[in-house]
Amino acid sequence: MKLLRFGTPGQESPAILDSSGTIRDLSGVIDDIAGPQLSQDALARLAELDHSRLPSVDPDTRLGPCVGRVGKFICIGLNYADHAAESGVEVPPEPVIFNKWTSAICGPNDNVIIPRGSTKTDWEVELGIVIGKAGRYIDESDALEHVAGYCVVNDVSEREYQLERSGTWDKGKGCDTFGPLGPWLVTADEIRDPHDLSMWLEVDGKRYQDGSTRTMVYQVPFLISYLSRFMSLQPGDVISTGTPPGVGMGQNPPVYLRPGQTMHLGIDGLGEQTQKVVAGDAVGNDA
Amino acid sequence: MKLLRFGTPGQESPAILDSSGTIRDLSGVIDDIAGPQLSQDALARLAELDHSRLPSVDPDTRLGPCVGRVGKFICIGLNYADHAAESGVEVPPEPVIFNKWTSAICGPNDNVIIPRGSTKTDWEVELGIVIGKAGRYIDESDALEHVAGYCVVNDVSEREYQLERSGTWDKGKGCDTFGPLGPWLVTADEIRDPHDLSMWLEVDGKRYQDGSTRTMVYQVPFLISYLSRFMSLQPGDVISTGTPPGVGMGQNPPVYLRPGQTMHLGIDGLGEQTQKVVAGDAVGNDA
Repeated sequence: MKLLRFGTPGQESPAILDSSGTIRDLSGVIDDIAGPQLSQDALARLAELDHSRLPSVDPDTRLGPCVGRVGKFICIGLNYADHAAESGVEVPPEPVIFNKWTSAICGPNDNVIIPRGSTKTDWEVELGIVIGKAGRYIDESDALEHVAGYCVVNDVSEREYQLERSGTWDKGKGCDTFGPLGPWLVTADEIRDPHDLSMWLEVDGKRYQDGSTRTMVYQVPFLISYLSRFMSLQPGDVISTGTPPGVGMGQNPPVYLRPGQTMHLGIDGLGEQTQKVVAGDAVGNDA
Repeated sequence: MKLLRFGTPGQESPAILDSSGTIRDLSGVIDDIAGPQLSQDALARLAELDHSRLPSVDPDTRLGPCVGRVGKFICIGLNYADHAAESGVEVPPEPVIFNKWTSAICGPNDNVIIPRGSTKTDWEVELGIVIGKAGRYIDESDALEHVAGYCVVNDVSEREYQLERSGTWDKGKGCDTFGPLGPWLVTADEIRDPHDLSMWLEVDGKRYQDGSTRTMVYQVPFLISYLSRFMSLQPGDVISTGTPPGVGMGQNPPVYLRPGQTMHLGIDGLGEQTQKVVAGDAVGNDA
């Protein structure tokens, strides 16, 4: 299934993309694509519905982030050997974990806002894992049972804030709109092999990233098991698994986003995102 | 006012400590100490109630974290000159921001669980700020309008995970139970000066930390303004502002927590916490 959320930011309704490509409203069935609705049992109940009888939704509706009430937005750094190389660093001996603030989450086609004064806002197409079942100290062999599904993530990053402003990466990874999620949460049964998915990202039509999850260093089951040594995982947690080569910082000379540009990105089977880049002062979606 | 939450973990009810020290149940009045209930208007309505007419609560009830639905648990590192010195580092030229995973949040007197295999679990008494009003690009002169109140935080930290395991601090700061909050959210009107509060922490009766928020480098209004350059703040976000000297890592030789020990900590006017230290395998509060 391809599950999604649509409507006003912060008040999205749940929906499903049916086999004909029509968005069908699930708000008469479940409250949200979130929390307990991500369990295998709950997903199985959704699969059994006659989707053609659900109300159809205007195809031009705004899409929200494909999962609601995200408790943790956990990211893995430098998880593609070739991206580590372009960043001028070695693949770390164990995964690098970092945080995106959950207030960074937005819809897949929402504007991405360059923070005031920023000159180094960058892109990263990534495979996102959506957790469906809670756990701690999860065995690698059981890890995939904890996956509700997968989605596209653009791990938008401000490189000066991330790397040149004292301390951890947390200043540059979680600015508002730096976490587009979706368009869909694609349930795990639809993804034959999460480690064999093409992924790409273009800025104004120029393809900068053209990779595959095949070159991921630490793979999905290991990452889930590894993370669960340091924290419990809950339904609705999102794990973004790192980016392949081709980020702006890795260009020679580096290339960063400017207001007015458009990012377009996608992953095989998980859909595509399109974001217009705007200046922070121009849009005023400040809370 | 001293607001608190009591009852079963994850299902806490809201309450207030009345002027006689009796816990009074607010669940007939508000749904939680969280989100919109942290606004100045909502807090003013609570203040106007006749607290003596609210149902009293068993004083031995379990206390939960003093704020619910925390969206972001933001921490400031090395924010006391004397603690930076004991850590062997300079005070950074601008604040260090890091993250505690929200799944680390627990009640003020819950057990603190040493993760499996951990040998370097440490303590940090800190002043916590609870945000009451959303904002982005907040002027320092307006910052205190965004504060609902203050609370005690124990920023429990695993030093090997934090410092020796690749990448950011995020592995060692957000393990389950590493974020006791409370006992109370003390509303801002009760705290004359957040930069003149004594704070202390004892392990098995030995006083390791004995400091004051007077030696905080980056103060509350600046921190709120600074953070809001990198993210929007929402009601219920918690900012933990750093720890004074006396952490275990700073002892010579270093001292770390062992199962069976008890931490006791407090801040003037904000109450006290008591946590028993237990081994991860011994308690099984794994999700």
